[in-house]
Formats: sequence, structure tokens, C-alpha cells
Amino acid sequence: MKIGVIGSGALGLYYGAMLQRGGQDVRFLLRRDFAAVRAHGLRVQSVDGDFHLESVAGAREASELGEVDLVLVGLKTFANHRLVELVRPLVGENTAILTLQNGLGNEQLLAGAFGAQRVLGGIAFLCANRGKPGTVLHLGQGNIRLGEFAGGLSPRAEAIAEMFRACGVGCEAVADLLRARWEKLVWNVPFNGLCALTGKDVTELLEHPPTRQQVCALMLEVVAGANAQGLSSPVPAEFVERMLSFTDGMDHYRPSMMIDRLEGRPLELEAIYGIPLQQAAARGVEMVRVRMLHALLALGEPGR
Amino acid sequence: MKIGVIGSGALGLYYGAMLQRGGQDVRFLLRRDFAAVRAHGLRVQSVDGDFHLESVAGAREASELGEVDLVLVGLKTFANHRLVELVRPLVGENTAILTLQNGLGNEQLLAGAFGAQRVLGGIAFLCANRGKPGTVLHLGQGNIRLGEFAGGLSPRAEAIAEMFRACGVGCEAVADLLRARWEKLVWNVPFNGLCALTGKDVTELLEHPPTRQQVCALMLEVVAGANAQGLSSPVPAEFVERMLSFTDGMDHYRPSMMIDRLEGRPLELEAIYGIPLQQAAARGVEMVRVRMLHALLALGEPGR
Repeated sequence: MKIGVIGSGALGLYYGAMLQRGGQDVRFLLRRDFAAVRAHGLRVQSVDGDFHLESVAGAREASELGEVDLVLVGLKTFANHRLVELVRPLVGENTAILTLQNGLGNEQLLAGAFGAQRVLGGIAFLCANRGKPGTVLHLGQGNIRLGEFAGGLSPRAEAIAEMFRACGVGCEAVADLLRARWEKLVWNVPFNGLCALTGKDVTELLEHPPTRQQVCALMLEVVAGANAQGLSSPVPAEFVERMLSFTDGMDHYRPSMMIDRLEGRPLELEAIYGIPLQQAAARGVEMVRVRMLHALLALGEPGR
Repeated sequence: MKIGVIGSGALGLYYGAMLQRGGQDVRFLLRRDFAAVRAHGLRVQSVDGDFHLESVAGAREASELGEVDLVLVGLKTFANHRLVELVRPLVGENTAILTLQNGLGNEQLLAGAFGAQRVLGGIAFLCANRGKPGTVLHLGQGNIRLGEFAGGLSPRAEAIAEMFRACGVGCEAVADLLRARWEKLVWNVPFNGLCALTGKDVTELLEHPPTRQQVCALMLEVVAGANAQGLSSPVPAEFVERMLSFTDGMDHYRPSMMIDRLEGRPLELEAIYGIPLQQAAARGVEMVRVRMLHALLALGEPGR
């Protein structure tokens, strides 16, 4: 399958590399890593074993990538004003577009430009950071849950999931993408924001009982917001306990938003806070602590 | 009147200097400023006009100050474990103790050691910071409201208030000290904590509409906590509007807690957050945003 990766940060580089290693025909839109990848290929330092791809197809301009069967979107959502123009040159008659971006609103944006029938979304539970140019660090996890933007299970979604699995990436096709997106927000909302705001990692947050309690309270607010959206089945309260245990197993992980703040980049506030707050409020759920966290994060944005 | 100042930070130095300038016999317990004050006296740079006291009585040890008629307490509450031992050498048969410290719990501590009948509390609306040693910067405001810990208006409280006024400090004796303390918390809880947490000043918080809204919501939580305490009369909701306008008039003021955090000192978390949260919860009011702010501030404390 011809696959084009738009947004080659840690997530795009990692999954693209796994797919290429598994035999797929992958090409990357590169910016920071262009020169390093051209000269030395792409190195993956992974908890599952390091590997190196000597020859990697990459370009600085989307127009040089050509049409593909599948566009894999890993762009940071704060760059979404450029998303449609970056994806457009890769889209042919039968191209599908899978966004693995964070939060809400990404499928809607792609569907508006390219039609809902092309669009799939996926939720990646991936702990990865960028290393030096040409290197991506895979620290743990990595499973994907993906589904059709239009809803329901499709042969296409099943086929893409099977392809990921064949390349060594745990992947499951789900019928209710919106539910999966909100489940991911149960993790992203507390940890991305609190780590970015306080400069502390997930372990530091969870080992301090008062902030552990706040993480839990934030998660319960997101569960309430989720369960007002008319999902196929409600997210159970025990899901919060599962997310806490899951995170207890991470050793001082720094979420991407924390690294974005430390390195002076903008934060993915609309996708992870702004749109979820709107969607919850539209169904009568006011997420009090989430709104406070959003306000405090927005205060620290450069060029606000 | 013989007056001893325990805790000569910005607040203790400023009021002590005003009282000495007005003719009172003031002596200071000094630490950081001892050498500078001994050599050059005490300089007050004030929005109401600068002045300089050439000869200032100060000591490094409380035992050198002697007994006084009035102990003025300006100690940071995070040093309250030393409060009683510092005050004791100044207390004679008829000594009154007035604490101008922040938050809740200070009068109780003094009453436990010296008897409730000796203790008064005061709320200072003062914008002041320490300058270089021997200098205090008075940036604005400065009025005091004081009252008996035991409640009610007393001739003693009226006399102390009159003394402050005679020395150029606006001062009012109030019958319900607890109400005045909670009113001050309506300001301290949002501004001290949010400025310390985010590194932004009061003007930056108020000019960003989402954080202005959070300031307002935090204030309303404190008003609800206050009005559960059986005060002589409830704090009206309009009090919040008044505090916001009052703060709009401050030009990029940095509250003391923000400066404490920036300079690596501990924060006054128990007096301003911990005890008020307990007192509110004991009367059935859960201050949700205040608790979140407290948890995030505590996370950043050194040596937690």
C-alpha cells in the first residue's frame, strides 16, 4: 500500500517507520528531520528493539509525495490551518485519510474538505518523543484504535487495522470512533494539561495525593462529558481507575504537551480542551475543572 | 505606645515605619535587614511620598526587644511553627498582640499560647514589596481593618485603630473579625495562588477573559465558603465585583505569594488554602476550584 505521512513528529515517524519496516511503501513529509533522514535514514530506538531504515522516501513539499492509497496524519493540531493544503496533493480518486491527531475536530476538518467517506480517525496510545534529527524514541505502548468518521465497522477499516497488525502495531477497528476519541480525552485532558502547566511529569502528579485526586476528578468530568454525547454505550466510571493504573505503570513519562510547552511551541488547546468543552456544554455538561485548566494553559500561550 | 514588630517583611517594615514616623516607640525583630538598618536606618519608598527613618531600634533576637504594649505580627505563616517563641519575650502583663498575617488560623495559634483576651487580628490591604536591604517599597493601598479575636467592638481595638489613623494609616475597627478575614480571602485565594502558579501578575490574569472568569468563579466559591461560617452578616455577591474593580486599578501588581515562588521560598498554603478549605468543608461547602488550585500549588513546593 502506498502511504503518505503528513506531520512527521514522533507519532508520524514512528508509525511510518513501522509500516515501512513491515513492507509498505511509505513516504514522509519532513521538515526538521529532512536533511538527517536523507543523509542517514531513520533510526527508531524502541522498547521493543531498535531498528534502522537506511533508505527513506521523504520530501519537504507535499506536492512531491504523489498520490497515495492512504494518508496518515500526525500533524500537531495547532497547525490545522495548514492541514487541508498539506493533504490535498496526496489525494487521488480512492485515497483514504486516517488522522491519528489528538482530540476532537480533526475528522470534521478533513471531511469538510475531502468528503466524509474518505475519512477515518484513530487513537494512538503511544509514548514517543523525538530524539535528535533522524531519530525517534519509542518509550512504550503504541496500540491504535481506528474507525470510520461516518461510523460503523467497514471492510476498509478492518483492512487498515490488519495492515498495522501485520507490521507489528497492535490495532483494532472500532465501530464508534467518537467514543474512542472521548476515551482518549479521559487521559489527555488531565495529563497533557497538568504536566504542561506545572512542569511535572505523570509520575510526579500521581505520587502527590492531592494532584492524584485532581487527575481523578478531571477524568470523571470528561467521562460525564463523553456520556452526554449519545455514544453507542456509556464510558463506565471504572475506566478512570483503569487509566490511573495504566499511567502508574509509566516511569516519569512527559506528555507531548509538556514537551511542547518546555520547548516554547504552542499547545494543542482547541482539540483537547476548547472543542470538548463546547461539545460537553452543548449537551448540558459543564466540566468545571477542565475549563479552569484550559484557561490557565491559554494564559501561558505565546502571542496570545 | 511601645510596639514590637515580629516578622519584618514588607508589611512589618512598612507599618512599623509609619508608626515610628507618627511618634510611636517601635522596635523591630530583623533578620535580612539587620545590618542595613543598623548602618543606614530604614527607607520607605511610597506612592504617598518617600521618607527615611535615621535611627531605628532593631535586634536579631526577640529576647533583646523587651516587653511592649503591642506586638505587631507580620511573620509569613509558613514560619508559624516559630511564632509563639518569637512573640513570648515581648509579652508582659498588659500586652496586646495584633496579627496582620494572611489567612486563617493565626489568631487561634496566638490565643492558644497567650490567651484569647490578648489577641486581635487585622487585615491589611497593602501592596508592598521588599526592596534592597533597609528599603521597603509601598506600591499602593495600605488600609487596615482590625478586630478582637473574641469578637465585638472593644475600646482597645478602637484605640489601636485611632493610633494607626493618627500615623497616616487608614484603619477601621470591626466587630466581626472572622468576616473581615474571609473577605480578604476573596482576594487572596485567586490572586495569590494563580499568580504564583502561572508566573503572571494580576493585570495579566484580568486582561485574559478566560482567567478573569476563573478569578471570578474562585471568588464566588470563597464567598460561599464564607457565608457558611455563621458571620454577623453575609458577604454579598457584589463584593466580588468590587474586588475585581479594585484589582483592575492595580498596575501589574505581583502578590507576595508570586514573589515567594519566584524567589524559591515556601508559600503560605495552609493559612490561605488548607484551613479555609477545611472550614468550608466542615460547613458543607466544597470549594472545587480552590481545592484544585491548592493541589497544584502544593505540587510545586520545595521539599514536599
